[in-house]
Amino acid sequence: MNTPSSLEELIKALRCLPGVGPKSAQRMAYHLLQRDKQGALHLARSLAHAVESVKHCSKCNNFSEEETCVLCSSSRRETNLLCVVEMPADLLMMEQAQCFRGMYFVLMGRLSPLDGLGARELPLERLVKRAQELACEVILATNFTVEGEATAHYLATLLRAQGIKVSRIARGLPVGGELEHVDSGTLAQAVLERRAVTE
Amino acid sequence: MNTPSSLEELIKALRCLPGVGPKSAQRMAYHLLQRDKQGALHLARSLAHAVESVKHCSKCNNFSEEETCVLCSSSRRETNLLCVVEMPADLLMMEQAQCFRGMYFVLMGRLSPLDGLGARELPLERLVKRAQELACEVILATNFTVEGEATAHYLATLLRAQGIKVSRIARGLPVGGELEHVDSGTLAQAVLERRAVTE
Repeated sequence: MNTPSSLEELIKALRCLPGVGPKSAQRMAYHLLQRDKQGALHLARSLAHAVESVKHCSKCNNFSEEETCVLCSSSRRETNLLCVVEMPADLLMMEQAQCFRGMYFVLMGRLSPLDGLGARELPLERLVKRAQELACEVILATNFTVEGEATAHYLATLLRAQGIKVSRIARGLPVGGELEHVDSGTLAQAVLERRAVTE
Repeated sequence: MNTPSSLEELIKALRCLPGVGPKSAQRMAYHLLQRDKQGALHLARSLAHAVESVKHCSKCNNFSEEETCVLCSSSRRETNLLCVVEMPADLLMMEQAQCFRGMYFVLMGRLSPLDGLGARELPLERLVKRAQELACEVILATNFTVEGEATAHYLATLLRAQGIKVSRIARGLPVGGELEHVDSGTLAQAVLERRAVTE
């Protein structure tokens, strides 16, 4: 009752941000109105502009302002590998690691029944179509979390049924990792998935 | 380079929210564009609307859409007490406690040199003017944090120099508090500020 309605509306609207509860929303609203009105206006414009211009690349499903994103239109990428990642941030990490020159497919999520994300919420038909189009090996690079592993398992079954070759990125000790400090699950996997030393 | 410019701009703009770093900003932008475009547009409109309509009450300095807020215009408040709080949330807590029927003054901050907030950033002239106008007792209800205590000390000196009666809300054990579980600082203050038992 002592809060102006437009301020109350703003506090409510801020709740749409992930991880922002009533207390944080209030703190954010106070901060913006008291100390950063310019920032607030800039944020309002950026939100409207991004919602209007950001679409999905028709090939890799990543965010893009064009029908086909820069990476998918590039002639310098190899088309014999298709790497499936969960989120655009994962694609950026792959690119930063400079370990992969193939194409990508971004799921924009993972199987997570608890969050209401089932197989129908993922663009699986488009993934299969893209893999068949490229007629290439698919590398599953979803996270090694419970949801990521479940997603990889589901995708592997789906893709193999279409006669597509599927692989999964390796688990093991991180570079610079010491046995003393690694968790036992990772160590067990590293032993299980050991490689033959040749040469 | 693989991130559309409007998305990058949005991620940068989200950083103006307090407590939001680069990773959270990215997560928020992905979430809004992937799962809640309506929420994003609503947030954009709410921001613009709040920045335009929310001003400060000319009397209590609280956020208000009117020149004078509902509380200050009410004829049912007592004008012989002026309670100084740091933020609008503190005023709401006071009102919820239903322990106070006087007027308020909201500092919209506290003395916090580390955050670049000195005495000049607080509306102290307006506070003194308001206290003189009401010719009443001022109750300092800033927090019992280091900054809140410093602010209370500063305000007490300032207001007493103008011949204004000043008091501070009490420190002590919370209602339902047990000596066994209270911190020693609070217990020491409760002993120091003990009250005579009369009747």
